Amino acid sequence: MLKLKAGIVGGAGYTGGETLRLLINHPGVTVTFVHSRSHAGKPVHSVHTDLIGETTLNFSDSFSFGVDVLFLCMGHGESKRFLQENAIDSSVKIIDLGNDFRLGDSVAGRSFIYGLPELNRESIRFAKHVANPGCFATAIQLGLLPLASKGLLKEVYTTGITGSTGAGQKLQDTTHFTWRANNISAYKTLTHQHVPEINQSLKQLQPTFEGAVNFVPWRGDFTRGIFVSSVVESQQSLDELNRLYKEFYKGHAFTHVADTMIDLKQVVNTNKCLIHLEKEGNKLVIHAAIDNLLKGASGQAVQNMNIMFGLDERAGLQLKSTVF
Amino acid sequence: MLKLKAGIVGGAGYTGGETLRLLINHPGVTVTFVHSRSHAGKPVHSVHTDLIGETTLNFSDSFSFGVDVLFLCMGHGESKRFLQENAIDSSVKIIDLGNDFRLGDSVAGRSFIYGLPELNRESIRFAKHVANPGCFATAIQLGLLPLASKGLLKEVYTTGITGSTGAGQKLQDTTHFTWRANNISAYKTLTHQHVPEINQSLKQLQPTFEGAVNFVPWRGDFTRGIFVSSVVESQQSLDELNRLYKEFYKGHAFTHVADTMIDLKQVVNTNKCLIHLEKEGNKLVIHAAIDNLLKGASGQAVQNMNIMFGLDERAGLQLKSTVF
Amino acid sequence: MLKLKAGIVGGAGYTGGETLRLLINHPGVTVTFVHSRSHAGKPVHSVHTDLIGETTLNFSDSFSFGVDVLFLCMGHGESKRFLQENAIDSSVKIIDLGNDFRLGDSVAGRSFIYGLPELNRESIRFAKHVANPGCFATAIQLGLLPLASKGLLKEVYTTGITGSTGAGQKLQDTTHFTWRANNISAYKTLTHQHVPEINQSLKQLQPTFEGAVNFVPWRGDFTRGIFVSSVVESQQSLDELNRLYKEFYKGHAFTHVADTMIDLKQVVNTNKCLIHLEKEGNKLVIHAAIDNLLKGASGQAVQNMNIMFGLDERAGLQLKSTVF
Amino acid sequence: MLKLKAGIVGGAGYTGGETLRLLINHPGVTVTFVHSRSHAGKPVHSVHTDLIGETTLNFSDSFSFGVDVLFLCMGHGESKRFLQENAIDSSVKIIDLGNDFRLGDSVAGRSFIYGLPELNRESIRFAKHVANPGCFATAIQLGLLPLASKGLLKEVYTTGITGSTGAGQKLQDTTHFTWRANNISAYKTLTHQHVPEINQSLKQLQPTFEGAVNFVPWRGDFTRGIFVSSVVESQQSLDELNRLYKEFYKGHAFTHVADTMIDLKQVVNTNKCLIHLEKEGNKLVIHAAIDNLLKGASGQAVQNMNIMFGLDERAGLQLKSTVF
Repeated sequence: MLKLKAGIVGGAGYTGGETLRLLINHPGVTVTFVHSRSHAGKPVHSVHTDLIGETTLNFSDSFSFGVDVLFLCMGHGESKRFLQENAIDSSVKIIDLGNDFRLGDSVAGRSFIYGLPELNRESIRFAKHVANPGCFATAIQLGLLPLASKGLLKEVYTTGITGSTGAGQKLQDTTHFTWRANNISAYKTLTHQHVPEINQSLKQLQPTFEGAVNFVPWRGDFTRGIFVSSVVESQQSLDELNRLYKEFYKGHAFTHVADTMIDLKQVVNTNKCLIHLEKEGNKLVIHAAIDNLLKGASGQAVQNMNIMFGLDERAGLQLKSTVF
Repeated sequence: MLKLKAGIVGGAGYTGGETLRLLINHPGVTVTFVHSRSHAGKPVHSVHTDLIGETTLNFSDSFSFGVDVLFLCMGHGESKRFLQENAIDSSVKIIDLGNDFRLGDSVAGRSFIYGLPELNRESIRFAKHVANPGCFATAIQLGLLPLASKGLLKEVYTTGITGSTGAGQKLQDTTHFTWRANNISAYKTLTHQHVPEINQSLKQLQPTFEGAVNFVPWRGDFTRGIFVSSVVESQQSLDELNRLYKEFYKGHAFTHVADTMIDLKQVVNTNKCLIHLEKEGNKLVIHAAIDNLLKGASGQAVQNMNIMFGLDERAGLQLKSTVF
Repeated sequence: MLKLKAGIVGGAGYTGGETLRLLINHPGVTVTFVHSRSHAGKPVHSVHTDLIGETTLNFSDSFSFGVDVLFLCMGHGESKRFLQENAIDSSVKIIDLGNDFRLGDSVAGRSFIYGLPELNRESIRFAKHVANPGCFATAIQLGLLPLASKGLLKEVYTTGITGSTGAGQKLQDTTHFTWRANNISAYKTLTHQHVPEINQSLKQLQPTFEGAVNFVPWRGDFTRGIFVSSVVESQQSLDELNRLYKEFYKGHAFTHVADTMIDLKQVVNTNKCLIHLEKEGNKLVIHAAIDNLLKGASGQAVQNMNIMFGLDERAGLQLKSTVF
Repeated sequence: MLKLKAGIVGGAGYTGGETLRLLINHPGVTVTFVHSRSHAGKPVHSVHTDLIGETTLNFSDSFSFGVDVLFLCMGHGESKRFLQENAIDSSVKIIDLGNDFRLGDSVAGRSFIYGLPELNRESIRFAKHVANPGCFATAIQLGLLPLASKGLLKEVYTTGITGSTGAGQKLQDTTHFTWRANNISAYKTLTHQHVPEINQSLKQLQPTFEGAVNFVPWRGDFTRGIFVSSVVESQQSLDELNRLYKEFYKGHAFTHVADTMIDLKQVVNTNKCLIHLEKEGNKLVIHAAIDNLLKGASGQAVQNMNIMFGLDERAGLQLKSTVF
């Protein structure tokens, strides 16, 4: 089988590393280069030390290797600059894991499809450029899209908790082990940068949606995963709602509606999103869980690549969960 | 100084152990007995192994020792039975850490004051019997009482996370280390047993309160502590709200309104409650943190004892936080 | 490709679950049945809840399905009884993950090869029955075999730490989250049941070995993984020792000698063993890390299956590490 | 009662903070100043955020306040420079928590007593300057001193694990939460800087001791505490050894020999050291546990202060353990 040639820009960070981990075991892909300015010339396993014995790739400082697909795994704001400053052949498909293009921005004549397969699979299939969704945005949206698809969505109250990998590789006070272990804290209360992309998707399905997504993010004392609970008013019965959600996600390989309570570790180290619904009176509570680095970042990026190139959507993504 | 004589019934469990830890270092108290049917005769440090070198008390199987105050640290439902089946001298003051008497139930002619000092200090001062509040109930109420005191409270959306000690000593699937480590899950969604006592207190201050406290509890992957975030509508400015809260908690030694974001470990292993307010548009978010076993149970019980007997409210409760 | 038919006996436990997780994604295997007396008839994802969406298998209460290979994932002592009580066709190859046959015991005319590929690959290739090594035994041996292969081994001082999954699924005091979180403790000091199989392997390579492996096991506050440090006297230089180790493990796909310090999470959720050597004076320290459920149990079992059936030794075992 | 006046230099770090937490609740001490160059003028609770509501002290940038006792809580090497550069009145007693004076160094005419009360209580009683022992050094020595006191000590093999607070407040790769959570690693193998002070104490009791303390330190995935297991040869019976240890520690308020297996959390947030002995054949294994910031640093410093000033050795140190 002819393999896709893939390049990773920003390969020394968390999402770059996860993308690399997925691609080196992907049956339809060859990793042509992993770009990193700061580590150029060094083996990738000198940074991603778990990869010892699995790849002999070195980080490179150039990226003109004639690839089919390019993954941009850089800090927010850097993707746009990268595409302004570097001439990438127009035949190269681009998947951006940053937040530069999620709200419709384009650069150098390139426009981006918002890469949430459960919302936009058909557009992704024909996209040249995909803006991969944010991690919290993925979990929250997947819990709300079925309601929006029927115009049923009103004001939303969401609390979500994220693992430390969501804060990236840089050392900071809130990722100091001594502080974060066994700790819980809130941040960016009602002002998280993922809310606009959530609203954009909800309005795509329910143009009349004028309610708010009141989102309180918490920092959790674990490394991987996002768990969110959203409370909304609903007149439908729990049975009707479960049917709606299961119908909506039929044919979506990674998103499942569970009949029993979910927990975060069911999805850690996988590309899945699990959803569970509960109802009391007229209040519906939607719980959703993803791995922030996989379905919330690199896994979804590879899923988008699979769709863009007509591969099996699950190729390279049938991952063993950590489970414990 | 003449010391109070205290007895603990149900001394082998978590709240019994914490009560004991507080009382053995309390300057105004002598622990007369620690009752445990299952461990009678054994040193208390055979169960509470951290107490080695600190006490030579043994568990006893009787409890007729002429005490001044009795702490009931039993499973929910057992306090009522205990007081029905055992003749306790009417001079003995009783503090019940279970949930049998929080909603106004009485037994054998004994009625109980709801023991939240920030709400009922004056009544507690003259109470013979106190029903100690629930842990989640304490954290959520302390975040809402100032609003209720001004009749400002409408519908409340609260998410809270609790450490594993909230689930008690019994082995169960959800406290298996392998399952709980690095995991998050929801339980008793909108149906937690602490909601009625929260509503009771809110109505005590704001009789017109007919809104709901929509409470989503989560299990956290840590042992001690509760962190809650409540979202409510509010027309007041953040300045006004901070003034209201600080005024309300003036003179309350353990509850503080912080001007900067709080985190759980600021209060772990202390009797404090910390509160922090944030406002966006007309939405107020109230964060609150306590140690579920101290301000949420045994610490508040000792605080109640101090008030009931006219001691310094902080006696025995100036605890070094774990902090890290 | 014709796929191997595999059956799992004891499929509801940890090692049964991990074996299942590996086999359902193994390109050369079909899982024919997963046996569990207690869960027969239920979907396997009702127990292994992370498998939702990945398999429609149910637990079965029989195991006569004409399989090629049978994995025994039962409690220690139960494999022998199982093979005594059940007639398994003599054509079926058996891999036992318990400790019944590691020291040379046979049953009903079946003898077992000790299934450590780095020691016995050629025998495993032709084995009908394999006794999969213990988890601590795997990590400790892989750190010592190269020395024994040259007759260089004297007394060994080893400390090892294990995740909670090593203690199995049963609820017990030492796996209560409240106790185990942030805790360290020792157990089975110098008397761990894996020491005899370690000695057996060392004597296989160095028949004169009469020293002891003084092994102090610790319980760690994590779920997956084993880290061991062994101290031995050595006259060789660190360079010579590194050459010896790298030569010994050349051609072994999963065991690597790292030139820089290793840490546990490099191997968690993989089938790897990483080794790192340090030398001060005449003391050599050998650090080794594995995932106790994979290289220490189910992963090594699948590796053995691959060898026994002439498959690529790495088939189904190119796992994405959790890494964080 | 007249209270001692205490000053803390380097009050913004971990050991400075812990010393402060102990002193503000110490019945015989008033904290006169907490010095910090970088935070001068700010409330101490702006850095030690758990102290909100407990103290109105601000950090100061000077330290000439006529104190009785000065705690130096600075980085290693800085205490000597501080005492060279600043004229401290000769009447001020000094307790240095760094490692500058543990091996007999003096400065500006000041010599220091090694402040391990279980070894040197009588000298500490009359000391003007005390060098507080290292954390690992405290745990390892307390496990070995009774043997050395009888001249019984030969070569020692010790593995120890430490919480992240041992690495201090500075952000570094090995204290990044994402890396350290659920991880184990070794560092400074056989070369840890505490070994010389251990040897110094052992030789003080057993001048003929020429063996080595082969010490392998591990980084643990918790914040507080040290657990060590030492293996030595011994001809004595376990009964004799237990008698020896209990006799040796009789009258030492914080060090206890437990008859049952110990675990780390028995001592976390206390000033205790727990020891447990096990014997197989001629191998004795000594387990010991302390809180690295208390008995391993600030708690022992306050214990030394109590001894130096003739206070009850336990004053201010009867701490509630975190226990869970």
